[in-house]
Amino acid sequence: MATDRQLWRLARRPVGEIRDGDLTYERETLPELGEGQFLLKILYLSLDPTNRIWMSDAEGYMPPVALGDPMRGLVAGRVVASRKAGVAEGEILSGLGVFADHMVTDGQGLNRLDLPPGLPLATAFGALGLVGPTAYFGLLDIGQPKEGETLVVSAASGGVGQIVGQIGKIKGCRVIGIAGGPEKCRYIVDELGFDAAIDYRAEDVGARLDELAPDGVDINFEQVGGEIMQAVVARMGRFGRMPLCGLIAGYNDVEPANWPGRWDLLLMRRIKIQGFIVLDYLDRYPEAIQALVGWMAEGKLKTRQDVRDGLDKAIDHLNDLYSGGNFGKLLVRVGADAEG
Amino acid sequence: MATDRQLWRLARRPVGEIRDGDLTYERETLPELGEGQFLLKILYLSLDPTNRIWMSDAEGYMPPVALGDPMRGLVAGRVVASRKAGVAEGEILSGLGVFADHMVTDGQGLNRLDLPPGLPLATAFGALGLVGPTAYFGLLDIGQPKEGETLVVSAASGGVGQIVGQIGKIKGCRVIGIAGGPEKCRYIVDELGFDAAIDYRAEDVGARLDELAPDGVDINFEQVGGEIMQAVVARMGRFGRMPLCGLIAGYNDVEPANWPGRWDLLLMRRIKIQGFIVLDYLDRYPEAIQALVGWMAEGKLKTRQDVRDGLDKAIDHLNDLYSGGNFGKLLVRVGADAEG
Repeated sequence: MATDRQLWRLARRPVGEIRDGDLTYERETLPELGEGQFLLKILYLSLDPTNRIWMSDAEGYMPPVALGDPMRGLVAGRVVASRKAGVAEGEILSGLGVFADHMVTDGQGLNRLDLPPGLPLATAFGALGLVGPTAYFGLLDIGQPKEGETLVVSAASGGVGQIVGQIGKIKGCRVIGIAGGPEKCRYIVDELGFDAAIDYRAEDVGARLDELAPDGVDINFEQVGGEIMQAVVARMGRFGRMPLCGLIAGYNDVEPANWPGRWDLLLMRRIKIQGFIVLDYLDRYPEAIQALVGWMAEGKLKTRQDVRDGLDKAIDHLNDLYSGGNFGKLLVRVGADAEG
Repeated sequence: MATDRQLWRLARRPVGEIRDGDLTYERETLPELGEGQFLLKILYLSLDPTNRIWMSDAEGYMPPVALGDPMRGLVAGRVVASRKAGVAEGEILSGLGVFADHMVTDGQGLNRLDLPPGLPLATAFGALGLVGPTAYFGLLDIGQPKEGETLVVSAASGGVGQIVGQIGKIKGCRVIGIAGGPEKCRYIVDELGFDAAIDYRAEDVGARLDELAPDGVDINFEQVGGEIMQAVVARMGRFGRMPLCGLIAGYNDVEPANWPGRWDLLLMRRIKIQGFIVLDYLDRYPEAIQALVGWMAEGKLKTRQDVRDGLDKAIDHLNDLYSGGNFGKLLVRVGADAEG
């Protein structure tokens, strides 16, 4: 059993994009297990846009990580020692953890991860941990898709976007994905069955939407913000809905995300915009997991993970998210013996 | 019976605020009544912020008034001659009409106005025609007020605002109204029972909100836009709701209403913004009328009309709306013998 661990601590708050020295990679002795605690060997670390929010003391939906503290992240791991009743060695748990290879915890924020038959751990954790329920509740609860409607999703080949688009297809929508580069655009159309893709790096998003959705966009599943968001909002139709899931274009900005809004269109077209955070839906997680696993079993829902090795490179991998350098849900495989 | 009529026609589309010559006041011979038509003597003309939208060919929720056509407006009138089955002389109707003292119509867009006992026509038409249902559906359906929540309403002494605030009180909210000038502010607190008022002409709206609503605003019933809206949105709390009812600050603008949005706050605080138009609720009007009349009868809902004389001055009166020169729901009493 391990007696020390590697981990990332937040040394200072990044200004703009994350730079060398904002976080430090350290080796330290593991504390003894106290009564009610257990030792989790982390197998996968999830890298998510929201990680950057947690580093900042601008307002977020949770308190920021304190300076000097281990960096917060979503993890999946295996219990390798336990002094907590009801938690046995060998169990696989996932939930809120830290950027580390081991953590000593009382289990708060962690839940047992039941692997559906045939699903590798990386898929189950990557697709079902955070991004699947985010896509599920944001699209279905707020977006309220109806058959024949036009759905636009930005960051379409990423963790959440790929699932949003496929649920949209399951619900009978015409799905247009916005992604960066021909490979991702081909993937969402050819592999995932989206109806069309817009390459925001090479194409004028607004002009392409005018061609692809001449009658307007019914649902804009927004993850990006900035000019892409503005181009889509300007083309939303009457009674359009916009689940506001993320604003990755602004997470590295020093100023607040105060892009111009077309308030006149929101009014005249009776558009709804609603911010949401998947954590608000925790009590309905089983509903989402059941549906997602069902669609996976039927072959209607595929997910792509972008699994990287090396906890020591986690911050470089994370920075890839903000420049669109990932392709699919970004995970770090922690240590050489990660399962799945 | 009249053989000719006075009316306002739209001569050219206003650029910015409405100027002399944008509309022309004309006298013309009334056409003969055709089969299925009737002649309505207009008693009251409602002046509403939305009138300016109808003059513009920027996108609206209805087609604009065509150049040369009579100006569209909400009216209440008495049938003085009828060749339409089911419509009898003497009946009072209200609905979509024109800026005129008479109209020949087949009745489309008009409905019988049943005067609740004891209610003068100006009150029934002013409060129940458009603004009451607007307040009712916007606040209750979209705002979803809960007891103990803090509700902010802008243009608070105007037609819709005064009713929104009083329904908020009926539902147990703390109500803060934003209005222009000490007289209006005193009125909404002393006469209508709002908990507090902010005079946007004399006070810093944001600073006053910080004092009055330190825990944040749960519902922002938005009618104004611009800096006032931005000050309120920045202070909305988690899971806040913003029924977007109007943007009067922008109706005279040449550019679209693209004030900066705090998208980051919408996301982090899971705020909902939803544009609406009362015409979308036409099929539920009876529910609103019944509730409003009931509250009036119980003395829980007062309304103030700002009744002006002189159809020939209608455009001057209308311009008052955009500068806050009205005090209560603005109506024009058309002709000397208007009842009620």
